[in-house]
Amino acid sequence: MMNRRMILVRIGQMLILESVLMIFPLIVSLLYGEWHSLTAFSITIGITAVLGFLTVLLIKPHNKVIYAREGFAIVASSWILLSLFGALPFFFSREIPNYIDAVFETVSGFTTTGATILTDVEKMSHGMLFWRSFTHWIGGMGVLVLIMAIVPTDSGRSIHIMRAEMAGPVIGKLVPKIKDTAKILYIIYLILTVIEFIFLLLGGMPVFDSAVHALGTAGTGGFGIKADSMGSYSAYSQWVILIFMYLFSLNFNLFYLMIVRKFTAVVKNTELWVYTAIVMISSAIITWNIFPIYGSLHDSIRHSLFQVLTITSTSGFSTVDFNTWPTLSKAIIFLLMFMGGCAGSTAGGLKMSRVMLLAKTIKRDIGHLLHPRSVSSVKFEGKTVDNGTIQSVSAYFALYMFLIFFTFFLISFEPFDLETNLTAAISCVNNVGPGLAMVGPMGGYADYSDFSTIVLTLAMLFGRLEIYPLLLAISPRSWFTSSNKRKIKRASR
Amino acid sequence: MMNRRMILVRIGQMLILESVLMIFPLIVSLLYGEWHSLTAFSITIGITAVLGFLTVLLIKPHNKVIYAREGFAIVASSWILLSLFGALPFFFSREIPNYIDAVFETVSGFTTTGATILTDVEKMSHGMLFWRSFTHWIGGMGVLVLIMAIVPTDSGRSIHIMRAEMAGPVIGKLVPKIKDTAKILYIIYLILTVIEFIFLLLGGMPVFDSAVHALGTAGTGGFGIKADSMGSYSAYSQWVILIFMYLFSLNFNLFYLMIVRKFTAVVKNTELWVYTAIVMISSAIITWNIFPIYGSLHDSIRHSLFQVLTITSTSGFSTVDFNTWPTLSKAIIFLLMFMGGCAGSTAGGLKMSRVMLLAKTIKRDIGHLLHPRSVSSVKFEGKTVDNGTIQSVSAYFALYMFLIFFTFFLISFEPFDLETNLTAAISCVNNVGPGLAMVGPMGGYADYSDFSTIVLTLAMLFGRLEIYPLLLAISPRSWFTSSNKRKIKRASR
Repeated sequence: MMNRRMILVRIGQMLILESVLMIFPLIVSLLYGEWHSLTAFSITIGITAVLGFLTVLLIKPHNKVIYAREGFAIVASSWILLSLFGALPFFFSREIPNYIDAVFETVSGFTTTGATILTDVEKMSHGMLFWRSFTHWIGGMGVLVLIMAIVPTDSGRSIHIMRAEMAGPVIGKLVPKIKDTAKILYIIYLILTVIEFIFLLLGGMPVFDSAVHALGTAGTGGFGIKADSMGSYSAYSQWVILIFMYLFSLNFNLFYLMIVRKFTAVVKNTELWVYTAIVMISSAIITWNIFPIYGSLHDSIRHSLFQVLTITSTSGFSTVDFNTWPTLSKAIIFLLMFMGGCAGSTAGGLKMSRVMLLAKTIKRDIGHLLHPRSVSSVKFEGKTVDNGTIQSVSAYFALYMFLIFFTFFLISFEPFDLETNLTAAISCVNNVGPGLAMVGPMGGYADYSDFSTIVLTLAMLFGRLEIYPLLLAISPRSWFTSSNKRKIKRASR
Repeated sequence: MMNRRMILVRIGQMLILESVLMIFPLIVSLLYGEWHSLTAFSITIGITAVLGFLTVLLIKPHNKVIYAREGFAIVASSWILLSLFGALPFFFSREIPNYIDAVFETVSGFTTTGATILTDVEKMSHGMLFWRSFTHWIGGMGVLVLIMAIVPTDSGRSIHIMRAEMAGPVIGKLVPKIKDTAKILYIIYLILTVIEFIFLLLGGMPVFDSAVHALGTAGTGGFGIKADSMGSYSAYSQWVILIFMYLFSLNFNLFYLMIVRKFTAVVKNTELWVYTAIVMISSAIITWNIFPIYGSLHDSIRHSLFQVLTITSTSGFSTVDFNTWPTLSKAIIFLLMFMGGCAGSTAGGLKMSRVMLLAKTIKRDIGHLLHPRSVSSVKFEGKTVDNGTIQSVSAYFALYMFLIFFTFFLISFEPFDLETNLTAAISCVNNVGPGLAMVGPMGGYADYSDFSTIVLTLAMLFGRLEIYPLLLAISPRSWFTSSNKRKIKRASR
């Protein structure tokens, strides 16, 4: 039987944390004298905190040990509730009067997608804009990893939660204790965000704008506060965002390795170099392709690098509308949507290391066809990858494509063109944000019906949590079948 | 070292067979008094036969045993040469003056794709039209399998050739001898083709039209002889083609099982039922979706069933232009392009059984996540599928998606819209024929540059031979490294 009490306790902790985190946008509302959003945040904080404390105080778990399936269940239910409560301020303040839309916007924030149903972002209050970008920051590294980092817990096997919440094929510990790993990751995350904030300030960007953009870049989210995203900011600001989008799409382990001065390990990281090479080559082709549009070489380089990085890091900021680019550039953008950033970053997508593992598996299989009796293994980052991981990466890829296809099918009941619906599905599953045609960088998801909005909301959650946690959460088998019963059933076959 | 002499002997046999098969279109040219195409076929037959006989007579293999890699090499080089020589009549007759286009058309024929670079098919001579549809028939079941069936060969391990040429995840023998299996398959194929021919004749379709459509349906190719494909033929003829597209997209083993009266084995075939269910459900949704366009229920059902089957069987005939259908119907068509027909049929695509194996693998992996210590196996058609097959199916899917993405990238240097280029790539790799937008059922591939035409030609070949044979053929490792050398290399690491 699932350890349901332990799941509830974790959810309770999460709700308390969420209410605490909402104090930041509440302060922003206060500073700007936005009384309607101040009220909305106060009410939400009240509800969330009361529910959280009640859960934590009333429920006493018999034992604190959790296994993989509890890890998945905690992550799935936490993320759903996080979003449902996180959407309340938008709804209470009437700034997003449709609750389904508010949940979409919140999930888009937490999953660091950056897709929006807003038609006029510049009309929003500062408090709401701050909360929107702050959700990117919270969701980027993971809210449960944050709990691990700050709550003095005696938890058994939190690694299962970390594995389920953090993206990528293999999640390792930096240091023996999982709690310390979580702490180190969050400190690196915080410091990098602050550095970006300072760099943006230095370029003359207003404090509020710098803060929301730093938060949005760190989570590789992409919510902006202007109708043209980053288009009207200075070239300097665009370069800062561009560089930080790159940094936040790298494996955070690399920053830790640099701090502990293991530079050779960084240099030897093949994922880093393959990722950088793909970004460079894609940008070079696009630069050549769009040069006739912009004339200036500097502009072409900046726009191509920015748009490539906004897609590979799955952020979604933009300096220009790539919808108007030639086919070749759009094709590259389309393909990069699948790839995403490096494993262990805040970026979405398949992740570079998965793509590399798939390529290596294919290469090995070809060798095996030529010499059936040869036994060759797949090596990655200097280590032999076990067969289980290889198989799970291939199976994940198939599941991931099914998810994209299924999402695309469900939203095709909408009358929009194929390019819109297909890229909307791809973009949401990969947590990118913009797609092409109607959902392009200067467009949005406002015209989708409630049904499709719900479908795309789920697609973003499935994509962010890499499918399995949510799939297990909706499978009755995980809730109602005990391990023992299953064993008996299997034996009696 | 590769047994190169044996490879050459097989290629020689293939060339002789091709020259013999070209006698059929030559007779058609003669009957219609088309002297220019008669000349073109005569010259091609001469060249092909001489080269074929020279190869077979001059080359004496030291030993006749072939292994998997020789099987792949024979299939890859045979198919390339088959197409290069098969294109000569189009070129010599000046009916397709650009040789690259002629090769595209021929490969599209042999791979049973049905994509065309012709802008006015009705201007072609009867000889050429017959040859075009006859290539579908030859390529559908495989030219090397045909050699096995008719040449009294003492071959060692021809199963390797059959495995490489026939599509699907697992190729089994119907009867102990591979030669007999090939014979049975071809006899079933021939009989079904003749039955379809007779049914078409009975509906009043002219003899020539009935012949080319029967050949095209059998190979699930899709080359028509009218500008509107099947649009102007009677509803009866459309129903006949529709039913035979369905039959030819089923596993041929089922027909054999029916002949030997093993009906329970047919009824228990899950691939058959899942495939039929998907066809029915897709058609039902599309019928509901397009009903407002056609008004009549019978027309809506016929058009939706026809277009669904033309895509799942990867034929490519059409009765209407699905490009003008609503988004939902187009989305379903788009998704079905990936699936294809059943394994062991003449259809292309991923194949139903691969899709089912992928789904079962995912289901098993989810169970494994819930209960990490459980050991559960994947069952398919009543048998446990070994891990090697499961892994190779997942890896094949990844490779297949890479192929589609890479093809799409290469043809995106063309100025056409994303929908055109993307569906062109998907359609060619899956050997479907039509795509959407410019390459839709009433459009074509004529506007692509020579470069893209070559890319799409290769994509069709890669798709038909399921990637590996061609990939191995272009890998220098298969030609220049002996097994011994490799063993030494591996040991010295």
